Amino acid sequence: MKLLSFRFEGKTLFGPKVKKEEAVWDVKSIAEAFGVNDFPSTIIEGIAEGLEFVEKVRKLAEQARNSENPEQFKYAFSEIEWLSPIPRTPKNVLCVGKNYAEHAMEMGSDAPPEKLMIFTKSPTAIAADEQDLPIHADLTDNLDYEGELAVIISKKGHKIPKQLAYDHVFGYTIANDVTARDIQYGHKQFFLGKSLNGSCPMGPYIVTKDEIPNAHQLSIATKVNDEVRQNGNTADMIFKIDELIAEISKFVTLEPGDVILTGTPAGVGKGMNPPKFLKAGDTVKISIEGIGTLVNRFV
Amino acid sequence: MKLLSFRFEGKTLFGPKVKKEEAVWDVKSIAEAFGVNDFPSTIIEGIAEGLEFVEKVRKLAEQARNSENPEQFKYAFSEIEWLSPIPRTPKNVLCVGKNYAEHAMEMGSDAPPEKLMIFTKSPTAIAADEQDLPIHADLTDNLDYEGELAVIISKKGHKIPKQLAYDHVFGYTIANDVTARDIQYGHKQFFLGKSLNGSCPMGPYIVTKDEIPNAHQLSIATKVNDEVRQNGNTADMIFKIDELIAEISKFVTLEPGDVILTGTPAGVGKGMNPPKFLKAGDTVKISIEGIGTLVNRFV
Repeated sequence: MKLLSFRFEGKTLFGPKVKKEEAVWDVKSIAEAFGVNDFPSTIIEGIAEGLEFVEKVRKLAEQARNSENPEQFKYAFSEIEWLSPIPRTPKNVLCVGKNYAEHAMEMGSDAPPEKLMIFTKSPTAIAADEQDLPIHADLTDNLDYEGELAVIISKKGHKIPKQLAYDHVFGYTIANDVTARDIQYGHKQFFLGKSLNGSCPMGPYIVTKDEIPNAHQLSIATKVNDEVRQNGNTADMIFKIDELIAEISKFVTLEPGDVILTGTPAGVGKGMNPPKFLKAGDTVKISIEGIGTLVNRFV
Repeated sequence: MKLLSFRFEGKTLFGPKVKKEEAVWDVKSIAEAFGVNDFPSTIIEGIAEGLEFVEKVRKLAEQARNSENPEQFKYAFSEIEWLSPIPRTPKNVLCVGKNYAEHAMEMGSDAPPEKLMIFTKSPTAIAADEQDLPIHADLTDNLDYEGELAVIISKKGHKIPKQLAYDHVFGYTIANDVTARDIQYGHKQFFLGKSLNGSCPMGPYIVTKDEIPNAHQLSIATKVNDEVRQNGNTADMIFKIDELIAEISKFVTLEPGDVILTGTPAGVGKGMNPPKFLKAGDTVKISIEGIGTLVNRFV
């Protein structure tokens, strides 16, 4: 299932993409119309229920499709304002540094890190697919893209064993870990340079984990305008998703709606010779096999 | 005003300390009893209103005191479960690294940092005054304390000018930036080693800014058991509170209920020769002039 968050008539809503249509089911309205009282009121409450929630949503969409007037429960994509599928994470977005060997090298490391490097991005940086993002010319002339697979956590966990890690995954989306390189390195700890407003676009939707049998066999590509810059595969992650979840949760309690950005493959602007940073007017498109394409223009 | 968060009969509440009594006013009940409808339902909603909220709370406490049966609106400290005054921050707790010159030296730096170093602690690490905290013997034998002045942000702001910074301060509390030194340095970025469960005790209460005319003239002392380890003064911060707010908000949007830990003075366990890390049974007491004392035992 492809699950999205959106705004319609001032309300923040969520629902599954309508199959073969450029439209979304308003599941909350469907739940109300069919008298389902215990339906989650936010996408994070739903995500906390894991695959049970996916099943509930699927049934509601089915009921709407078979109802007398299915159109009343659908909005065309052109009518809605898209949001990041998780509009606001419960804690900062968790990010893995240097999780592809070739990227570690292009950033000047002699070898990939032996221990997991985790930094965070402020949830105030989260943005949507197709949203125009600020270039922040007053703060940096080193703004860079990083295309990444984002993992959405479902149920809460602390010290999650590696072999149970996927029980805590709800699904996947695409993220651009936009980074001001000069601020990232000038301030030593990465947080500030990774947390500018608009520097965490995610989307277009969550693809639930039942549709991604192997998250480590997905091509991931980033284009700036029409130039291919990154062309990798999630098979090349150094710390795999189950290790990431086990290792992070050894230290930090993971919660429903937490998002882990799993690192970026080689090909960032800073790694080029000479470096090629983003400029106003550039469009960045990140595509991950089986998930879709995240598109943002910098202005 | 001293404002605290607490749990009573399963409900998360907040209110001001009753003057000259070891008790708290349940302001929500007072608001209901006196028909005040627009009273904030969470402490963060209140904090967003700034000093207007402080005035509202003060009036309600006054009404309760002058009512026929004031006792119905009070709970003795012995009856309540104390929480961190902000039980859950809207984003990760923001922390300043090496903001006292002598501490930067004891940590091995040749000079204090030229640029602000900001890292974060997970909100899942937040704990209360008097709460027993885990020593995490399975993860670290390098657990260390850092006594710090914590600044509570009231109204939202981005690119806040230095001269308006205090308009965005709601008040102050005390924090212990508990740190697993081996994890902090082993993983390069500080987030994991700073985010173990229980590693961000704060309290006992917020002292609102109207009661702290100069936040840079406060003695700050940390004792481990009865040994004085840190004995500093907030006058010695390198980046002062107005600079911290201006500089952080240049990059990141600050929101009501955000907490900034302003850095620790010299005297942490790692700075001693030989280092003295925390062990099970140790009690850490951090006192800041005009605010109070935060006490936690490690178990």
